[in-house]
Amino acid sequence: MMAETWLPSLKTAGPQEGFELAAKLARLGVKLTQPSADVRDKLRANYEQDSAQLIASSQVIAVHFQTIAAANGYWRD
Amino acid sequence: MMAETWLPSLKTAGPQEGFELAAKLARLGVKLTQPSADVRDKLRANYEQDSAQLIASSQVIAVHFQTIAAANGYWRD
Amino acid sequence: MMAETWLPSLKTAGPQEGFELAAKLARLGVKLTQPSADVRDKLRANYEQDSAQLIASSQVIAVHFQTIAAANGYWRD
Amino acid sequence: MMAETWLPSLKTAGPQEGFELAAKLARLGVKLTQPSADVRDKLRANYEQDSAQLIASSQVIAVHFQTIAAANGYWRD
Amino acid sequence: MMAETWLPSLKTAGPQEGFELAAKLARLGVKLTQPSADVRDKLRANYEQDSAQLIASSQVIAVHFQTIAAANGYWRD
Amino acid sequence: MMAETWLPSLKTAGPQEGFELAAKLARLGVKLTQPSADVRDKLRANYEQDSAQLIASSQVIAVHFQTIAAANGYWRD
Repeated sequence: MMAETWLPSLKTAGPQEGFELAAKLARLGVKLTQPSADVRDKLRANYEQDSAQLIASSQVIAVHFQTIAAANGYWRD
Repeated sequence: MMAETWLPSLKTAGPQEGFELAAKLARLGVKLTQPSADVRDKLRANYEQDSAQLIASSQVIAVHFQTIAAANGYWRD
Repeated sequence: MMAETWLPSLKTAGPQEGFELAAKLARLGVKLTQPSADVRDKLRANYEQDSAQLIASSQVIAVHFQTIAAANGYWRD
Repeated sequence: MMAETWLPSLKTAGPQEGFELAAKLARLGVKLTQPSADVRDKLRANYEQDSAQLIASSQVIAVHFQTIAAANGYWRD
Repeated sequence: MMAETWLPSLKTAGPQEGFELAAKLARLGVKLTQPSADVRDKLRANYEQDSAQLIASSQVIAVHFQTIAAANGYWRD
Repeated sequence: MMAETWLPSLKTAGPQEGFELAAKLARLGVKLTQPSADVRDKLRANYEQDSAQLIASSQVIAVHFQTIAAANGYWRD
């Protein structure tokens, strides 16, 4: 589907980069289901104005952040 | 229900393949509940245009990715 | 409620059987809340045509699969 | 709120009893928010006929079952 | 926002106190987003009669209970 | 997107600060999807009066709190 490399590692320099990666993975989950950038752009205009969907997006980010934080040993060192 | 082998292992070469496997498992969860490909195709035309359902799909992928990432030791090596 | 044995173990031969067990547990969760097979059959006709509910079912399977995968050490050996 | 002991332990004899305990905890979560048995009975008549709510209940059971399974070492022995 | 100490520890005497703490954390999550007690009381009258929202509340409790149970080593001793 | 440092660490002095950090991360998840403060303020006026969305926000906080609690070894010492 997407031939290039878009997720080489779960390692990040710190929690902030980990959070941004989590947001990227949340978007990638949508992209894998709806590959058309045109359709996604049209939908984005809609859900960006819908607080329930923004909260749902934040929930997806939270689950991915949990995974990424564990992968990085919670950046404890 | 589905006689062939469709999930031999949770091991993947890296996080990207793990993410694609997570998306596959999310679809398989739907397939086990609605086995008819015809009905699924009809429904897909609908939910691909619905951002709330795309976000919900992304959430299912996130949970499966958590499982697969743990199964692969977060591809740390 | 249900006198017979319907969940003797979380051990499965591999990930595919684990996924099928996860789907079974998702259905059992519904069954424990709505014990009537007649009512469940009537409802099934409805939610099998509703992509949002199919995605929600897939989410329940994902959570159970996480549990079962951990119980089986992710079938690593 | 509820003076008696209603959750002495997370230990169960096996996964089946663990699943039943998970269903009990899901109900207890509702009870702590809506203490009136009369109101709950009225609501139950409603959500028992609503597949979306039955799936949501199954999701709560799945999260509790994950906790209980971990508490019991997945009943591996 | 709230100056006093309202969460000194995740340790509880047993699972029942842990479950009650989980319910408290679920309420605190709402309180941090909607600080007005007046508004919350008005909303409570509404969601206490809505089974879908009661199930959603039970789901939040389940996630917190998972955290608290892990924090207490599942009260195994 | 946001150049400054807004998440230097997951370490907190205790569970209460951890819970507040979880609430911050839930808001950050919304912010990464909807960067406009004006739009977010307008939406906030809406979801603060909607108990279903407050419960959904509480759910996002719960997932982040789970991550942060694990990162802090559950503040056991």
